[in-house]
Amino acid sequence: MIKVGIIGVGTVGKSVINILKDNADIISARAGVDIVVKSGVVKNLSKDRGLEIILSDNVDDILDDSEIDIVVELMGGVDEAFLVVKKALRSGKAVVTANKALLAYHRYELQDIAQDMAFEYEASVAGGIPIINALRDGLSANHIKSIMGIMNGTCNYMLTKMMNEDVEYDAILKEAQELGYAEADPTFDVGGFDTAHKLLILASIAYGIDAKPEDILIEGIQNISADDIAFAKEFGYAIKLLGIARKTNNEVELRVHACLISKDEMIAKIDGVMNGISVVGDKVGETLYYGAGAGGDATASAVVANIIDIARSGKSKPMLGFDKPLEGELKLKSIDTITSKYYLRINVSDKTGVLAKISKIFEENNISIETMLQRPASKDSANLLISTHIAVEKDIQNMIERIAELEFVNFKPVMIRVI
Amino acid sequence: MIKVGIIGVGTVGKSVINILKDNADIISARAGVDIVVKSGVVKNLSKDRGLEIILSDNVDDILDDSEIDIVVELMGGVDEAFLVVKKALRSGKAVVTANKALLAYHRYELQDIAQDMAFEYEASVAGGIPIINALRDGLSANHIKSIMGIMNGTCNYMLTKMMNEDVEYDAILKEAQELGYAEADPTFDVGGFDTAHKLLILASIAYGIDAKPEDILIEGIQNISADDIAFAKEFGYAIKLLGIARKTNNEVELRVHACLISKDEMIAKIDGVMNGISVVGDKVGETLYYGAGAGGDATASAVVANIIDIARSGKSKPMLGFDKPLEGELKLKSIDTITSKYYLRINVSDKTGVLAKISKIFEENNISIETMLQRPASKDSANLLISTHIAVEKDIQNMIERIAELEFVNFKPVMIRVI
Repeated sequence: MIKVGIIGVGTVGKSVINILKDNADIISARAGVDIVVKSGVVKNLSKDRGLEIILSDNVDDILDDSEIDIVVELMGGVDEAFLVVKKALRSGKAVVTANKALLAYHRYELQDIAQDMAFEYEASVAGGIPIINALRDGLSANHIKSIMGIMNGTCNYMLTKMMNEDVEYDAILKEAQELGYAEADPTFDVGGFDTAHKLLILASIAYGIDAKPEDILIEGIQNISADDIAFAKEFGYAIKLLGIARKTNNEVELRVHACLISKDEMIAKIDGVMNGISVVGDKVGETLYYGAGAGGDATASAVVANIIDIARSGKSKPMLGFDKPLEGELKLKSIDTITSKYYLRINVSDKTGVLAKISKIFEENNISIETMLQRPASKDSANLLISTHIAVEKDIQNMIERIAELEFVNFKPVMIRVI
Repeated sequence: MIKVGIIGVGTVGKSVINILKDNADIISARAGVDIVVKSGVVKNLSKDRGLEIILSDNVDDILDDSEIDIVVELMGGVDEAFLVVKKALRSGKAVVTANKALLAYHRYELQDIAQDMAFEYEASVAGGIPIINALRDGLSANHIKSIMGIMNGTCNYMLTKMMNEDVEYDAILKEAQELGYAEADPTFDVGGFDTAHKLLILASIAYGIDAKPEDILIEGIQNISADDIAFAKEFGYAIKLLGIARKTNNEVELRVHACLISKDEMIAKIDGVMNGISVVGDKVGETLYYGAGAGGDATASAVVANIIDIARSGKSKPMLGFDKPLEGELKLKSIDTITSKYYLRINVSDKTGVLAKISKIFEENNISIETMLQRPASKDSANLLISTHIAVEKDIQNMIERIAELEFVNFKPVMIRVI
């Protein structure tokens, strides 16, 4: 019998307990042993949780318990979780975590510490979708050309709603908050940070590349308006917040931002709160993984899968999927040098000569225009909606600064990259 | 160093050799050891294949070679492959196969024989998509509610073309044959047999259920016409050939047939030669896996992933994912008792009273009509296109027999189940 201790018994922790109980029959058949949750750690012991396990408010009650084989870390946060997980591994326990922030900052240290003990983290990216499994094992024969993921259900819910119902951002955010899809402070989700944490984990498995959230481009969806949505519809695009990892020569791009993406692409078809990740391998071509990215049971499904895997085979592979440095010569690409097509929304006062001046700035920055629409925005202002041919990020940023300084431009142009 | 012998060096075998060479750097980093192909077995030794490995036309040259750690079986067929694979396992070699027919007939015997040796078969279902991996490991915490898979690229290519271009079946088949997407004798693909083999493999992992292709409902796409496609479009459906495994109470339905499926479902969005499999777990909800289901490199990507997994961890789990009987009480559901919505195309001579007579037969068989369209088919015949509410298969089949006997019905009604 395998005994599990859970540190942090909230929504996901309770689902882990329930799944191990509800599905004990098949889990035992698949794992080859029975798996039970012996104990849990919570902050507030006085709250009645209706659970049949031993509860404590001291992590050492699990870490020092020689009967516990697997520690499930669901406490969240970075520093304290790192201490707890290190101690668990060093005392010979396997660890399963759903903590993306911990991994975004400490995955390489953890890979070193977890040389001998199993350390699994399927639930840290895209909830119930077994994407870690797919990338680390299923696609292991491939050099990974790119990863593009919709990995935040809040953003995808909001963008889908804006697309289907022509509602402005603020109204949709309010609705998402009322439905419990967005937090009171939604910045972590709508600002792209949650997606960035998950992207860094996937990029490590694919490329062995080390980076922290601070090192990469992270933008959110806060500036997207109904005008942008209308443009997207007219030209056959969906708008998605994507985490993107892409290998170009000896560099890896890592970036999180909203994208205009052809609605014929599979990833553009993923709507609502669902997540999906497209992975292109040099041999397998494109594969895509779709499912629920959040929710207690979906996340716990991944946690329990890791527990089963550890129960049947112990440590069967390196944590990030490689022993020797993987693609050791790869460097993080400077964001200034990425190339993309771009879409811009420039809000201008309705005066003569505006278009000529803006066109000139495009030309001076070597930006070539692909399509342009002008639409009235208010009584005396208009939106210029412009898509470009392939351009360099630095040139676009310079151009946006220049345009923003123009007297007749009412606020800094909104830019969305086109995939 | 791990040494591999390949039995059957055709398109996939050559891709395996190339991938192990092209991607040796990352494969070695991921596997923790170098992996090389030492030798291969071919039927015709006189053909120059430009390969740098030892070739023989005798399988025993690999099976008796004590240096070979992993045998890759790519010879195809059932009986001879079964003998070869058994011998390899019994002589202490791990086996990787892409042979779906072998598994459709012998997977449980192989699970018994492969108690101690690794036996892997990711490439046998949906080529490069790591669906075995997902189902056996990633979703192991779940009771599987259903599996629905587009697992034959030939059929999906043809149905997508018919949908997009309003062309009749025969013309599309000819085009698919010219493009190399369909065989000269296309029966194995368009008749649903290829899909059935793959479905049986997935159903074993999900349910532990034993069945042979002869035991289950297998229908193809040969009867689908432009009329059916037009109906599908009008009512918001796609038409897909699906392999379906579904648990209902203590029974499992296993069936392969064309389906009308709402175009809003993710699986309905998978077009062209691509494959996709939707798996619904009781905890994780729906997950979907998409990618190339055929082709040398995509299939070899899965074969090499299995080789890497064996190189790094040996035998780490039971072949079908369980030791003890899984959901032991589950029985194969008799096809007569399945329930579904149905679509029927009834070609009738243009006479008065036809509709009344047909309606009466519907009523007598307890079939309730949801929608009906009548369309001219030729100068003096019409198509009745009818969709039903939920009905029982046996009733539908009885009704079709009765209708087919009617004097004014020109040929046996075409039926497509609605998912």
